[in-house]
Formats: sequence, C-alpha cells, structure tokens
Amino acid sequence: MKFTLVAKDQQSSARAGVLETDHGKIQTPIFMPVGTAGSVKAVHQRELEQDVQAQIILGNTYHLYLRPGIELLEKAGGLHQFNGWKKPILTDSGGYQVYSLAENRKIVEDGVTFKSHIDGSRHLFTPESVMDIQRTIGADIIMAFDECTPYPCDYSYAKTSMELTHQWLKRCVARINSTEPKYGYEQALFPIVQGSVYKDLREQSAEFIASQNQQGNAIGGLSVGEPHEEMYAMTSLVCGILPAGKPRYLMGVGTPENILECIALGVDMFDCVMPTRNARNGMLFTTQGIINIRNEKWKDDLSPIDETLGGYASTFYSKAYLRHLIINKEILGAQIATLQNLTFYLWLVKEARKQIEAGTFTGWKNQMVKKVSQRL
Amino acid sequence: MKFTLVAKDQQSSARAGVLETDHGKIQTPIFMPVGTAGSVKAVHQRELEQDVQAQIILGNTYHLYLRPGIELLEKAGGLHQFNGWKKPILTDSGGYQVYSLAENRKIVEDGVTFKSHIDGSRHLFTPESVMDIQRTIGADIIMAFDECTPYPCDYSYAKTSMELTHQWLKRCVARINSTEPKYGYEQALFPIVQGSVYKDLREQSAEFIASQNQQGNAIGGLSVGEPHEEMYAMTSLVCGILPAGKPRYLMGVGTPENILECIALGVDMFDCVMPTRNARNGMLFTTQGIINIRNEKWKDDLSPIDETLGGYASTFYSKAYLRHLIINKEILGAQIATLQNLTFYLWLVKEARKQIEAGTFTGWKNQMVKKVSQRL
Ligand SMILES: [Zn+2]
Ligand SMILES: [Zn+2]
Repeated sequence: MKFTLVAKDQQSSARAGVLETDHGKIQTPIFMPVGTAGSVKAVHQRELEQDVQAQIILGNTYHLYLRPGIELLEKAGGLHQFNGWKKPILTDSGGYQVYSLAENRKIVEDGVTFKSHIDGSRHLFTPESVMDIQRTIGADIIMAFDECTPYPCDYSYAKTSMELTHQWLKRCVARINSTEPKYGYEQALFPIVQGSVYKDLREQSAEFIASQNQQGNAIGGLSVGEPHEEMYAMTSLVCGILPAGKPRYLMGVGTPENILECIALGVDMFDCVMPTRNARNGMLFTTQGIINIRNEKWKDDLSPIDETLGGYASTFYSKAYLRHLIINKEILGAQIATLQNLTFYLWLVKEARKQIEAGTFTGWKNQMVKKVSQRL
Repeated sequence: MKFTLVAKDQQSSARAGVLETDHGKIQTPIFMPVGTAGSVKAVHQRELEQDVQAQIILGNTYHLYLRPGIELLEKAGGLHQFNGWKKPILTDSGGYQVYSLAENRKIVEDGVTFKSHIDGSRHLFTPESVMDIQRTIGADIIMAFDECTPYPCDYSYAKTSMELTHQWLKRCVARINSTEPKYGYEQALFPIVQGSVYKDLREQSAEFIASQNQQGNAIGGLSVGEPHEEMYAMTSLVCGILPAGKPRYLMGVGTPENILECIALGVDMFDCVMPTRNARNGMLFTTQGIINIRNEKWKDDLSPIDETLGGYASTFYSKAYLRHLIINKEILGAQIATLQNLTFYLWLVKEARKQIEAGTFTGWKNQMVKKVSQRL
C-alpha cells in the first residue's frame, strides 16, 4: 500500500492524495459507501461502480462473521469474489456493532463475549480472532479491534477504555505481523485513536497510534452524539499528531457539512450509513441542499431530483415520482434515493479534491457547506 | 393499433405476431411485467428496458387511482411521463383489485362502490369512470371494466356476473367511442371474456366479446385457483371463437409452463405477478428449472444464478450470494431475483416466438415445459 500526497490546501489542512492498493487506486479525500453484510443496500454492484463511482466500500465484520459466515467467505475466496466488488474493501473490526447490536456483551481482558442479535448464539471476539476474520473476509484495509466509547463518557471510563484499546492494538499488530495475507494481495492494518472528547486522552492516544507506524490511521469514537464543535476540535487535534504522510480515516462521519469541515482539518477517508439509511426514509442529499421527499411540497414537483448533479437516478426520475414511490414503500424508491445520495457524496469528495488541487478549496468549502446543509 | 400475424405453428394454435402501438411495436407472444403502482417492483426503468427487454408493462388502475392519483398523473402528462417508461403500457380496469383488495365493496348496477385498502375512503367505479381513469393514466391498451368471478363459482352466479360484465362492456365501448385519447396517441379498448369454467357461458361470452369488434380481446376469470386442465380447456375454447386476426390476452397467467401451454392454444399476451412477487420470496425461474434459493442446498453454491440465460443479474451474481441476500432481507436480493425472473420470462416468450417462426414450436414446447417446471 502506498499513499502519495498530490496537493495541499494553503488555507486549511485539506490534502489530496492517492492511496494505492492491490485492488486499485483510491483518490482522496474519499467517501466509502457502507456495505454492511456484503451489499450496499439497494444498489447493484455495477451501479456502485458506474453510477456512484465508488472507489472503495466498507464491510462490517460483525455482520459478515454472523452471515454469511467466515467459512463460506473463505470458500468463495474472500468478499471480493463473493459479492463481485473488485475494487478495494475496508472492513471495520466489529467492535462498534458488538457495542451497539449484540446483546449481553461483556468486555473481558481477552476480548468481548457477546450474543448474536440474530439468533442469540454466543461468540468471543479477541484482537487476534478479529484480525483473522478480517484476513479471511479479504479486506484490503483491516481495522484494529477497539472499544468505541459512547457519548457522554466520564473521564475515568474513557481513560481505561483507551488503555484497553491500546493493549488490544499491540495484540492486533502482533497478529497481523505473524500472519500472511490470505489471498495473495496486501492487507494493511489501520489502528484507531480513541479518548472520547478529552484532549489529553486524544493526544496520548494519537501519539500511541502514530508510534505503531502502520500504513494508515483512523479516528474512532466520534460522531456518537457529541456536538459538532467537539468532533471538529478532536479531529483537528488528532490530525495534527497523526503523520501527514499516511491516510487519515475519520470513522462514521457524517453529514456533507461534517465531511467538508473534516476534509479541511486533514481527513482523507470517511464512511457513514447516513446517505444509504436516510435515503430509505426519503431524506435526500443534493447539490442544492437537503430534501425530505415525503414532504407534501414535493407532491407535484415534476422536476428532476438533482439536475445539477447529473447521472441516471438524479436526472431520469422526478421528485414527484420518487415521493410517490417512497410514500408507497416501493423498493424502487429506496433504489433511486440511495443512488442519489451516494452519487452526491462521491461527487462532493471528488469536487473537494478538485478544489484542493486548484488551490480554491477553502473558499469553495465555506460556500458549499451553507448550500448542502440547507433544508429545501 | 395494428396487429399482424407473421407465423403460425402447424401442430398447435401458436402464432407469432407484431402489435404496433403509438409507443412502439410489440413482438408477440409477449409477457408483460406488472408495474402495480407505476413501478415494476425492485427494477429501474433502464433495467426493464435493457436487461429484461420488456416491450410493454402493465399498470393497475385501482392502485394508480388511489396513489399517486389521477390529478397528478394528468399533470405529468400520463404515466409514461410520470415514471419514465416510454414503451407501451396496458392498464387493467381495477375490477380485479376491487374484488381482492377493497373492503366493503358492493356491486350495484351502475358499478362498484368500495372502501380503499389504504385509508378506508369511499369510491365508486363505473364503466364510464374507469374508461376515463385509464384514458388519464394514458394507457395504450385500456381494459374493459368487468367482474372477475372467483373459483369455484356456481353456475347461476357465473351467468349473472357474465351478463353484468357484458352490460358494462357496452357502456365501456360507448364511453371510449364518445371520448378522445387524452395525450394524442391511440388508446385501444380490450373487452374481457368471462364465464368461469362453464363451457356454454364461455362460448356465449367469447361470441359477445368478439361481436364488439375491438382491436384486441382478453380472457379473464382464469388462474384464480381452478385446475390447470380447466384453465387450458377454457382458453382453448375461447381462442377458437375470438378472431384470429386480433391479439388475445390471457389475464393473470401464469407459471412458465402455463404460458407455454397457452401460447400453444393461441394466446398472444400474458401478465402475472408471479415472477416479481415470488422473486422477493426467493423463488427463481431459470432456464434449468425452479429454484427455492432459501433452500440450504444453495448455501455454498458459488455458480452463477443462470449461466445459460445470460445477462447481468443471472451471470454476475452467484446462487450463494443471492441466497445470503434473500435470507438477510437485503433489498439487493429482491433486485437480483426480480431481474432474473423477468429476464427469464421475457426470454421464454422470445424463444417461443423464434420456435414458432422456425416451425419447431410444439416439439420445443413439450421439452421446455418439462425443463422449466422441474424443481431443482
Ligand atoms: Zn455516520
Ligand atoms: Zn398470475
């Protein structure tokens, strides 16, 4: 894996880069659509490639481990073979879902025991097993096993949790170093900075994570309910410590506004369920702002969903038609809205990259933040 | 509207024809995907055209009348403009849904009063209003307002109902003759033969329907639970009476086997929710037979869904991946399975047409019926 910076903004910490993986190059900053159980919901693989123009997608270790299961993924030759997505894949470590979805989860020093949200079966995730699982899934980028603290979270819990995450990280690194890529292509480990909203913990964590000298680094534990100012402050602080020559991935963020602001702070990679999940509820992200398509005001608006954005879903279908589909719970409604939102998210980061290269990022970003966060 | 027969099978009543409408030509025999509320569920319009290669789709008057409503459809310039499907559209008359979905429906001489299954609001459908509604939806082919009798149905009810359907038909014809196409293109009325499974009623009805001298004719009230032998006997009888020079549409039929057998009896047009509805439950129609993809036996079958059929969904995705998606209620599962089934149905009628033209239909049909109806 190789990361090359190609441009830096003069008025902010924004950067444009290229991350080379064995499944192809990723132009950063980049947004990664979430493909929870091996499918970006409501989107065909060819649409993801040709319409959305996604460059890398995310898979969830917790979901993939439970279904279809590691055995089948191994038999298929990894997730790329199983779902047909031939570009890079990043998998999270399952840590987040163990906290948010699993029942009766219990943190022990060795790892986390939990009960499946599907059938109640019991499982143990350890730093070692989670590395092995991600190797078998076939991720190009493997995330370290961490604890994602909730918000709010008191200082002493945040500190203890961060220390546990650091201990686990050492074990992740050791495991990755003592095992081989599963299918012949490189699998890089990204460690995760924690520390909740406490400056000293974030500093300490960022320094520890940087010291592990992996090929990229991630910032976790944000976008969990804290005010945006806290998110930006922590991101800025951590980006200042993480090495400039390696990609920085801000996990689970966020709105178009969040993404633009965090690009300005030096983040290179993002993922979020918002464009896909909210699409299914009728919330559209467009070049003109945010639309709740269920609103009566779109009832007879026969104009294209997002003419400026271009592309199939945005220009072929009208707002009134999409509203009709969403209100009637037609599957095609989820398909169209998801294509719109993902196409917009990928357009946004591509446009940000162009602006960074052109040296016009900050002015553009300040205008764009207003535009894309307004409710139409 | 013009119908031209281009070939006839020597060993059966099968025919190949071309039905010309103002929205393009339809090669018969043809299967029409059902687009209930203006959307063939889980399929983008471009997929319907390019992958499925549908030539005409069906819309349901009852659903479209309730949502999005006639006012919006009129404002859009008809359903073609509203949903973006630019090839021919046939609308049913709403009669079937009034019986199957509406609450407290009551047949009065003037028509049918019913309560919406969505919000309980009260409505009256008359032969005249239903003609007007279909004109406004913008159907290329408008179906007469009829009563679809259930199965079983006693003789006297079937006779009275058939007579009512005939009375209503006269009013439909009068209304169509006294009104203009709504959007400048031709809108043809197809009357519907009823009579349950009673030979004398079916004969009487077919003769009456033929006497109305419309541009095409339909056979209703079949595929409602009667044994296949009854369906075939009635279809054969009615096809013998309906004029050979006009298209014959067998409503709501059916399985691939039913379609092949009824093509042999002289039917030109079919529709059925089976390929779309059953897809969403994991039932696949393939060139090799019927697959219940939820079955454990497909769990690690990494072969393409239907290599022989060709096309995107059938060859890009594996059975094991589709099974995983369907079991996990992933929307993409419904998308893939629906594309598979519709692509197969359209392939089947296209292949039948080729065989009719080549003079090899009957032998091929007898082989194919066995193949496509076996459970894999
Ligand atoms: Zn998020
Ligand atoms: Zn049917």
